[in-house]
Amino acid sequence: MNGAETLVSTLTDQDVDICFANPGTSEMHFLAALGGNPRMRSVLCLFEGVATGAADGWYRMKDKPASTLLHLGPGLANGLANIHNAKRASSGMVNIIGEHSTSHLKYDPPLTSDIEGLARPLSHWVRRAESAESIAWDTTQAVAKASEHPGQIATLILPGDSSWQQVSAAPVLPAPVAARRKAPSSERVEHVARVLRSGEPTLIILANKATRGGALEKAGRVAAATGARLGSQFFTARIERGAGFVPLLRIPYAVPQAMAFLKDFKHIITVETREPVAFFAYPDKPSLLKAEGTMVHELVEADEDSELAFDMLLQALGATGVSAIVQPRIRTEVPTGALNPTSIAHALAAAMPEQCILVDESLTTGRESIGLTLGAQPHDLINNMGGSIGYATPVATGAALACPDRRVFCMVGDGSAMYTIQSLWTQARENLNVTTIIFANNTYAILKAEYANMGAGTPGERALSMIDIDRPRIDWQAMAKSMGVPSVAVDSAEGFYRAIANSTREPGPCLIEVKL
Amino acid sequence: MNGAETLVSTLTDQDVDICFANPGTSEMHFLAALGGNPRMRSVLCLFEGVATGAADGWYRMKDKPASTLLHLGPGLANGLANIHNAKRASSGMVNIIGEHSTSHLKYDPPLTSDIEGLARPLSHWVRRAESAESIAWDTTQAVAKASEHPGQIATLILPGDSSWQQVSAAPVLPAPVAARRKAPSSERVEHVARVLRSGEPTLIILANKATRGGALEKAGRVAAATGARLGSQFFTARIERGAGFVPLLRIPYAVPQAMAFLKDFKHIITVETREPVAFFAYPDKPSLLKAEGTMVHELVEADEDSELAFDMLLQALGATGVSAIVQPRIRTEVPTGALNPTSIAHALAAAMPEQCILVDESLTTGRESIGLTLGAQPHDLINNMGGSIGYATPVATGAALACPDRRVFCMVGDGSAMYTIQSLWTQARENLNVTTIIFANNTYAILKAEYANMGAGTPGERALSMIDIDRPRIDWQAMAKSMGVPSVAVDSAEGFYRAIANSTREPGPCLIEVKL
Repeated sequence: MNGAETLVSTLTDQDVDICFANPGTSEMHFLAALGGNPRMRSVLCLFEGVATGAADGWYRMKDKPASTLLHLGPGLANGLANIHNAKRASSGMVNIIGEHSTSHLKYDPPLTSDIEGLARPLSHWVRRAESAESIAWDTTQAVAKASEHPGQIATLILPGDSSWQQVSAAPVLPAPVAARRKAPSSERVEHVARVLRSGEPTLIILANKATRGGALEKAGRVAAATGARLGSQFFTARIERGAGFVPLLRIPYAVPQAMAFLKDFKHIITVETREPVAFFAYPDKPSLLKAEGTMVHELVEADEDSELAFDMLLQALGATGVSAIVQPRIRTEVPTGALNPTSIAHALAAAMPEQCILVDESLTTGRESIGLTLGAQPHDLINNMGGSIGYATPVATGAALACPDRRVFCMVGDGSAMYTIQSLWTQARENLNVTTIIFANNTYAILKAEYANMGAGTPGERALSMIDIDRPRIDWQAMAKSMGVPSVAVDSAEGFYRAIANSTREPGPCLIEVKL
Repeated sequence: MNGAETLVSTLTDQDVDICFANPGTSEMHFLAALGGNPRMRSVLCLFEGVATGAADGWYRMKDKPASTLLHLGPGLANGLANIHNAKRASSGMVNIIGEHSTSHLKYDPPLTSDIEGLARPLSHWVRRAESAESIAWDTTQAVAKASEHPGQIATLILPGDSSWQQVSAAPVLPAPVAARRKAPSSERVEHVARVLRSGEPTLIILANKATRGGALEKAGRVAAATGARLGSQFFTARIERGAGFVPLLRIPYAVPQAMAFLKDFKHIITVETREPVAFFAYPDKPSLLKAEGTMVHELVEADEDSELAFDMLLQALGATGVSAIVQPRIRTEVPTGALNPTSIAHALAAAMPEQCILVDESLTTGRESIGLTLGAQPHDLINNMGGSIGYATPVATGAALACPDRRVFCMVGDGSAMYTIQSLWTQARENLNVTTIIFANNTYAILKAEYANMGAGTPGERALSMIDIDRPRIDWQAMAKSMGVPSVAVDSAEGFYRAIANSTREPGPCLIEVKL
């Protein structure tokens, strides 16, 4: 076996069995190794940001890392924005970055760059595979790092010669370390129990792995036992949500609304997250959103086990027998008439099939709509944690590959969709069950609001022209057609409902343009 | 004036009068300042790689830097691949990177990243504008750096508070330093004169500013006087080319052909470049392309003045009266029949109007075609110096803005075009005279050849599927329509000729799909 073959088989031996790839010349041996290993699924992406975003989506639904294959420093650079988003979402991933062979580097050929330098700001772990002999070891460590809780970004740089050299001996591997979540400190648990027993208004903010499964259910029991409210940040990596799940209050995005929401809580308890912070700074607004005098108590640190923490807390509260209050199913009438945030939400809630996945990057429209889907069929909701737009269409792609039996709804603004629109092609190629919903308001609408929020006054005509994207107006049906995705445009609530429902009837991708 | 207004007026005071922008919330004051300064042209791009590539194209045609506006670390990251290409092309640019306000950074909000860390690997100069008071000074230095010869990448990080704070006093500016090219050493000139007098077979390789204007013409006189051949690397930032210009031999891309081309030269003389190096390393091929025993002599270093060097060389050779031999006009018949590299080249050569600009990123098709356009009407040829694909459509955008009276032909493979296809939207918005020619072979054709060159054998079906991009086949006419660009598809040589000629008749962009 050569180095590339060893790398791929080490990945699959450790259950990393998908590779989102945009290969180049220096990765031909790796491509051969991908092709030669039937345990590895290779997914071609036409732009690297699609590959890294898809790996993020895969992790969110699978809780295990995918791999990516990127072409030298610039290929990595193209994937960095979605690596940033994945890092902020605590998604693990293993990036393989092709590199010139070692002997060639000293001649500084055109594609040479400082790959370590580019990787380090957004990776938890960076290593160069110095030889084919070390690749199995390096790969094992990369997978172990990516598989930690919270997930980590591991970047392995693969020089051409390490790829094509033969491996002489059976690889030596580090001893496997099971990724375990740390136990929270019992002092912290007891302190939080005292806070909760006080009966003072308390918000418990859940994040990362705490917004799902046993942790969420047990948090619900704590809430039922104590009267504390359960909430989430505005953005969360993944929430199990809808009928039958413990509901979470969402802290609003805008600073005044978030402050109004938080002002009556005397205590904030954090679980795998920190106290609420404004997304951006504004000249006349604070960065921290809690009221003066509100106390913040950390229950679960990012690398700890939330479910265990809630078990301990229920014990400390003597509330192990209490049941959680779950969200009842709210049946929504099919709306008719004009499209607005409410009718959009109602159409969505009425049409969403059980176990669907919502990937939300509809900054303006969705912000007002998504709360109204809380009583829909049970589903997962995925948000952008890093704030770099262009995350939704790739993440939806990865989520659909991770969960082939579930329909993914990718709700995305027109401005955001244009960053990584190449995702549609991979969705068509792999016949993925993704319904892309484009909210086409022909503007970076969020910036219009933010312009005033920032105290920059009323935008003049020239500044406004830099926020509007309606000259030319993007033809979304033509865009979908160009990459082999069927599409429909809607301009009424009933049309939108029908389009969503229709999109679930047959496998494969489609695009709905919502004309706003 | 606030910091943002000071920044924009400092840019325009120093003749940086265009900004390729993809703004976000933290840049609203900058947007207001752009809108408020009529000397600044703001060009909206839907993806940051379009902005940085357009700045590169602007520099190539104007020899002065453009500015870009990017949104925090991830926005910069999206622009890095084309910053890499610009850096390798010695194109100067001033990147303004929006950043959280200083007081907000300590809360590590979602979009926070190590912007300096991301910028440094691909910038010559990085600075954070620590306050509104220092902005005029910082901006002046950024422009001075970007304007050096060779052009430099200057990256100025702009925190929100530096942007919105008022500037209290008239700005203090560093003393202006005229960007001067260094004189080459007379020892080197005399040494090269001795080499040339020897009469031994010699290749003079010109690059960067030496492939145009006075330097190119004087290099032609040296060649005429001495019998030396004039050549270029396979990729050059910009060549003045066609009838009436001194022609350059192009060193082939593939290693065996390049070695065959170089093997008979006893001497290689380099001008603003280095000796030829293979683009990639291959297991059984050398990195350096010259024959054993060939001697390399540096005449002009990257920061020196080539025209002055050739003046000195002509003096040393006693050849100041010799005339250059220039390329005669070769009139090409309009080809008919099948599309192939020759008929494509002939159609292009026959249809190219005087003073057009060719931006070439047609890795497979163009590699064989472009040599046959040497006798066309005078034009400029622009290549990708950094090897990161996705450079052509943005560079064509910037070149068209720089030269509104000239038609730009962007020759691009289908695979490459998909990286930064958002360029079409900016071309439509600004009604730019760009004819985008998509060579649609539905594959990363270059990788098919490279797979074998790499010694990876014959690709199996699974590996091959990662090189083909024909499932689904991209519908280029729909793609053009989606972003408001008219298009035509051609499948014959005469149809291609007609489409090129038609595209020059009216202002504005169009797209030609060449079905291969």
